[in-house]
Amino acid sequence: MVEITSRTKHPTVAGTTPGPPEVGSVVSRLPIDGKSLRADIERTAAFGAVETVYPDGRGRTALPGSEANGEARDFLVDRLREAGLEVRVDAVGNIAGRWTPPSADPDAAPVAAGSHLDSVPRGGIFDGVLGVYAALESVRAIHESEATLTRPLEVVCFTGEEGTRFADGVLGSSVAAGERSVEESLSLSDGDVTLEAALDRIGYRGTGRLDAHEWDAWLELHIEQTTRLGDAGVPLGIVSDITGTTRAHVTIDGEADHSGTTGMTERTDALAAASELVLEVERRGREAAATGSGTAVGTVGRLDVEPNVVNVVPGSVSLQLDIRSTAAPEIRAQVEAVRRLLDALEIERDVSTSFVADYTVEPTPLSERCRRTATDAARRCGIETRTVHSGAGHDTMQLAGVTDAGLLFVASENGRSHSPRERADWDDCTAATTVLAESLCRLATADDYPTQQ
Amino acid sequence: MVEITSRTKHPTVAGTTPGPPEVGSVVSRLPIDGKSLRADIERTAAFGAVETVYPDGRGRTALPGSEANGEARDFLVDRLREAGLEVRVDAVGNIAGRWTPPSADPDAAPVAAGSHLDSVPRGGIFDGVLGVYAALESVRAIHESEATLTRPLEVVCFTGEEGTRFADGVLGSSVAAGERSVEESLSLSDGDVTLEAALDRIGYRGTGRLDAHEWDAWLELHIEQTTRLGDAGVPLGIVSDITGTTRAHVTIDGEADHSGTTGMTERTDALAAASELVLEVERRGREAAATGSGTAVGTVGRLDVEPNVVNVVPGSVSLQLDIRSTAAPEIRAQVEAVRRLLDALEIERDVSTSFVADYTVEPTPLSERCRRTATDAARRCGIETRTVHSGAGHDTMQLAGVTDAGLLFVASENGRSHSPRERADWDDCTAATTVLAESLCRLATADDYPTQQ
Repeated sequence: MVEITSRTKHPTVAGTTPGPPEVGSVVSRLPIDGKSLRADIERTAAFGAVETVYPDGRGRTALPGSEANGEARDFLVDRLREAGLEVRVDAVGNIAGRWTPPSADPDAAPVAAGSHLDSVPRGGIFDGVLGVYAALESVRAIHESEATLTRPLEVVCFTGEEGTRFADGVLGSSVAAGERSVEESLSLSDGDVTLEAALDRIGYRGTGRLDAHEWDAWLELHIEQTTRLGDAGVPLGIVSDITGTTRAHVTIDGEADHSGTTGMTERTDALAAASELVLEVERRGREAAATGSGTAVGTVGRLDVEPNVVNVVPGSVSLQLDIRSTAAPEIRAQVEAVRRLLDALEIERDVSTSFVADYTVEPTPLSERCRRTATDAARRCGIETRTVHSGAGHDTMQLAGVTDAGLLFVASENGRSHSPRERADWDDCTAATTVLAESLCRLATADDYPTQQ
Repeated sequence: MVEITSRTKHPTVAGTTPGPPEVGSVVSRLPIDGKSLRADIERTAAFGAVETVYPDGRGRTALPGSEANGEARDFLVDRLREAGLEVRVDAVGNIAGRWTPPSADPDAAPVAAGSHLDSVPRGGIFDGVLGVYAALESVRAIHESEATLTRPLEVVCFTGEEGTRFADGVLGSSVAAGERSVEESLSLSDGDVTLEAALDRIGYRGTGRLDAHEWDAWLELHIEQTTRLGDAGVPLGIVSDITGTTRAHVTIDGEADHSGTTGMTERTDALAAASELVLEVERRGREAAATGSGTAVGTVGRLDVEPNVVNVVPGSVSLQLDIRSTAAPEIRAQVEAVRRLLDALEIERDVSTSFVADYTVEPTPLSERCRRTATDAARRCGIETRTVHSGAGHDTMQLAGVTDAGLLFVASENGRSHSPRERADWDDCTAATTVLAESLCRLATADDYPTQQ
């Protein structure tokens, strides 16, 4: 979508010299090597690669602490070392590779960037991996450009961003943010082994704790998991907010009865009651999306019926709800609507209900400094951007409370994610990495300070 | 609920002599031994007995062809032989025990009664078993009464009435009615073994085919599987019709998407569409029940979501519907309403749908002759009855096409069935068996002929 032809080295940081020459449609003095970036992502795709029926699909299963995840980590550590970075692994397996430029104060708070290498089962090859290798490629390009940074740079891979093993997700970043202790994290179990044992097995239970409080700023590049950028033909999104999420577990208990012998007025059908709830969640989500921030969504993703037999009136139903918005009051309003409906169902349908909100994350506005830096960098590079919100949680969500945190999205070709059909245009990836590199360069340079006000 | 104190023997059949003396509230010249009936049912309950948390619950698992079913059959065959009946087992395991009274023409078409000994998993102890042993107890009582019958009597146990193994149910009776061939039935598999192998294993693959066309009449006593009789305080129901049933398998395909990143207007939520269907089935069932025969029911008993994960918009839903009524047009109207809604969902929600009606049984009106005989018998015995329909299928449904078939219900104490909580009052069972015996006696007697017009 964006043609990348610039590989011109440029000796100084953006804003301190006249603009670099424009080559093709992307202008940058940072020589992002798109082929190397692609090779690293495709090499990582081989660890835990899965079969797929889609001709252009490519997927992988690399749950945190798995053998495939271990192989992906080994490859990353090799690549970090080859690039001259100093690698450390903390007690929960977070990996950081630091480069201290000759011009930088080694004790200055570093600027960090990265993402994660774990995947959901049968996930895509960009989710997480792009952010890690875009950060590494950025550091390599900055190194080659001989830019005069005043801060170290750090390439980071967090443990267990996906909530498919050991925790609900953002595990390593929540430890780095001090939201979760090392001890608690290591004792988490997948029902079979603990995180501690899994990390031991793959050789990634290190020492100490990566502490995001020590960072001056953080940037993450991630594939957008919807079609907004792709539909608009825009390669790069600058994320303004990450939606908050409330998940709830609802049970509705009626009476299991013979579907033939129990008259319509004699039954207490838990599935009919649950169906009213599913439609109410949808209706309230639509209302909130249409009238408020435009970011609200409400979903019943999981529904299980007991006994789930064709000739038995459903006796009980268990549902899991997922409600999100960048505006906390919109989440609260949706939750309240659900609770009111459950109260009404108890009266009108004589069912018993329970509601437990078991997961709540507040909406996260992202750093103005990081957003402005990335927006400026993209403009200088001639790359079109759009301000978007993120409907998905990311490690950046955890870090925003303890440092200046920014999140960039590269356009998805089809909006698919957590699927072998996940796709991004490789030139878009290179363009986005160029903006990431330019932004890191600017954030890690002394003259960034005055722009913080 | 009904006190049984009459054990007086009486030498002639009802209607041919002045009424027998009334003893207690039940009047009969047929000495039904309630204790023996109870003992046979409770002994059968021990084969495949299951644990239950309900203090007064008693359940069993005796799938057709299982070891527990084999033990129950062995016990029945012993009891039939002890009572002097001539036992035969047909090729699909149907058991028949014949008694030819000295007064009867051995070549006359017999009058048969019975039910089944197989159960659903964790079923109750009355379902089926009551009908078999009530028939045996009736024959014993008639034998002892020295009634002068003109036809043989036959006590029957059909194979596989419950649709939990090998077939959708009423397996042995559909073979006896000529609706299903012996060969096809024997080749049915539970996924592991065939019916033929299972019958071989328990020693119940006999020869020939029990042919219900040869019977002059058929009666089945069964526990009512709802609360109508119990609520009314009436021990015995005379069934007018068995509802027809249409079962359908519906699929609704939308698009599985990330529940956080996919806006409310961008999603095609298969579960929201399915919820509309569940409520439509309920609404149409209620309408049909309120305005028509009063017997219509419509149920979505099974619903499965894919991928069924909290943070994924449901991509597809599979549902199983069960629609019944004694009036075929009411079933057709409900099915049409479902199809119209599916068409509308395709347009309004952009889902793909499929509808396959995979099981259809027409409503079955039962024999006037049998109903009148049972009603008269109950009146003479002083036992209150109510005319009811059956919402559940029974072996009688198969036989009604080939002989005069009647179905009697004994009141359920709580409406529960297919459950260890299934309960009937033992005195009600004895009273109902008294009416069964009186009815069999009348049907198998020469002077029954003139009442057939």
